[in-house]
Amino acid sequence: MSEENVRAWEKYIRRVKPYVPGEQTKDKSVIKLNTNENPFPPAPGVLEALKNMDADNLRMYPDPSIGLLVEELAKFYGVDKEEVFVGVGSDDVLAMAFMTFFNSEKPILFPDITYTFYPVWCDLYRIPYETQAVDSHFRIVKEDYYKDNGGVVIANPNAPTSIYEDISTIEDIVIHNPDSVVIVDEAYIDFAKESAIPLTKKYDNLLVVQTFSKSRAMAGMRIGFAIGSKRLIKALNDVKYSFNSYTLSQAAILAGVEAVKDGDYFRDSIEKVIKIREDAAEKFKELGFSFPKSSTNFLFVTHEFIPAKELFNALRENKILVRYFDLPRINNYLRISIGTKEQMDILFGFLRKYINKKKNIK
Amino acid sequence: MSEENVRAWEKYIRRVKPYVPGEQTKDKSVIKLNTNENPFPPAPGVLEALKNMDADNLRMYPDPSIGLLVEELAKFYGVDKEEVFVGVGSDDVLAMAFMTFFNSEKPILFPDITYTFYPVWCDLYRIPYETQAVDSHFRIVKEDYYKDNGGVVIANPNAPTSIYEDISTIEDIVIHNPDSVVIVDEAYIDFAKESAIPLTKKYDNLLVVQTFSKSRAMAGMRIGFAIGSKRLIKALNDVKYSFNSYTLSQAAILAGVEAVKDGDYFRDSIEKVIKIREDAAEKFKELGFSFPKSSTNFLFVTHEFIPAKELFNALRENKILVRYFDLPRINNYLRISIGTKEQMDILFGFLRKYINKKKNIK
Repeated sequence: MSEENVRAWEKYIRRVKPYVPGEQTKDKSVIKLNTNENPFPPAPGVLEALKNMDADNLRMYPDPSIGLLVEELAKFYGVDKEEVFVGVGSDDVLAMAFMTFFNSEKPILFPDITYTFYPVWCDLYRIPYETQAVDSHFRIVKEDYYKDNGGVVIANPNAPTSIYEDISTIEDIVIHNPDSVVIVDEAYIDFAKESAIPLTKKYDNLLVVQTFSKSRAMAGMRIGFAIGSKRLIKALNDVKYSFNSYTLSQAAILAGVEAVKDGDYFRDSIEKVIKIREDAAEKFKELGFSFPKSSTNFLFVTHEFIPAKELFNALRENKILVRYFDLPRINNYLRISIGTKEQMDILFGFLRKYINKKKNIK
Repeated sequence: MSEENVRAWEKYIRRVKPYVPGEQTKDKSVIKLNTNENPFPPAPGVLEALKNMDADNLRMYPDPSIGLLVEELAKFYGVDKEEVFVGVGSDDVLAMAFMTFFNSEKPILFPDITYTFYPVWCDLYRIPYETQAVDSHFRIVKEDYYKDNGGVVIANPNAPTSIYEDISTIEDIVIHNPDSVVIVDEAYIDFAKESAIPLTKKYDNLLVVQTFSKSRAMAGMRIGFAIGSKRLIKALNDVKYSFNSYTLSQAAILAGVEAVKDGDYFRDSIEKVIKIREDAAEKFKELGFSFPKSSTNFLFVTHEFIPAKELFNALRENKILVRYFDLPRINNYLRISIGTKEQMDILFGFLRKYINKKKNIK
């Protein structure tokens, strides 16, 4: 837009960094390993709940307190109803938490390599921030979070590195921050060892955020939640009610309840993904890739001699989508979601051929 | 919470005015005339769309551009795709618009009697505002909006007054505000005469916001949208993508498309509500109520001798919920949603008895 065409009212538009969300395609012939979706369907009760929706569920406003789902989550995680907050995906929950808790003049702290939305929300809400470099193995240096700050955000497992830090590291960070809210973003925790949720009983400034988009295979329904002390949850609800009381649709509430109820299905489905991940890790190693030990539903891989960008493009041309971040320190890595066994076989079939051809040229 | 119990991190919690959303009950014996829901079901295709959802719709992220629904709305309203923005109910769309467009130091202007969320969003986003008194008949005084400002928001028809201002009034306000964004909140427009949408072709600073919650009977699915110039819509999308790319669930997208497609059902259902409203207006008059002429799916009534609060409580005890606002200027009014003919018969049966008993005591 040329300068002379700028209208007076445009001066007051909020400036944000343009962000282009990851590629979504409905082309069934594409192997989509780029957005960490679950390759397996959600619990059977979920589709059933949608089939059983009636006109009143649609016609009337949903319960603004999202009571049914809050109760089911409280039961599943062994916490009180007043310790659970539900939102439209964990992005919504995290953004709401940033807005609610990070109003200090002091910068909030998070790793330099982590979820790319954190700095974007900081810009949006004008929250000062300071990134802390992960070490050369992409590990979080806990001591970096001991200094004075306006809040701390740690993704555990971290993305896109796939690395899980021991729960004692998280607890150390919380212990050193009694005067800040510490958010632990556990989007991938169900593929890892141990959640920080039990620590919320001990530390009233710790907020743990999770999502239905990965382990529960419900990215399409947009459900995320936070667990923390009653004080934290009340503050989140106060802001939510003042913003948009009715966030979650009745369809999402009813579908979410069925997903949480079916604990057996949930655990089986996670086990299946982990099994494929461990098998994939072996195969990547054989093909000359290295990567941190993954505690997520993706692997963060780099090849011994083929540049990541080249591989990304070659895969793309062959209808296999993976994620490439053109960012400092990680621009020779690919983030590859765990698909079904069949999808992974096609991926490895292609990689084997491509790498061998390269080797022969070499 | 006593002073000594306040924790250091609580100092930085965003302060908002506590807001308690309107009563939602699933008790089928209650006659719910308190939240302006549509008494008739949504288009049959809507439930059908939910029944036809498959596991992939759930498992995968929805299209962040909400393309299918944007296209259907563009077709229905005769605008370009780039002139449509969709969000999680009109509350989400309006809040996003406040955040995107109202970043001036000058106060934004809206009527003193209007949707109660406007001042709440201003507090949340720290937007200065100045309310303009409606006249003694609750009419908007258009000249009040001609002064210097940081933005203008007009609900048309206004709530809870139910009054529709002629489209020429809206156009006059837009003409006098070439340097501000003017938002027209048309939540109830389908029960009124004429939308301001065609004016968006002429004025690139006019944003018209509508919802699926009233005329389309889909409050439970949380869908709202805005129509405006490509510049306005691009700014909204930039902010949305930086905040939470995947807002609308796949279920809401597919259900919304079916609602928009069925134009005949939509128009029939609106006509039915309007017919019951006009009949109800007659009956309220006979019972000694007065009220502005309604262009919405509710009536804003006051009785000649029974205080509104007394009536509100009496109705409530008899399982009829209506809305009472304990606010200056309107605390002797009730906002009563238009229900089915059967629900209205029960309402009037009760009112007739109650008022006659009062008359006999008098």
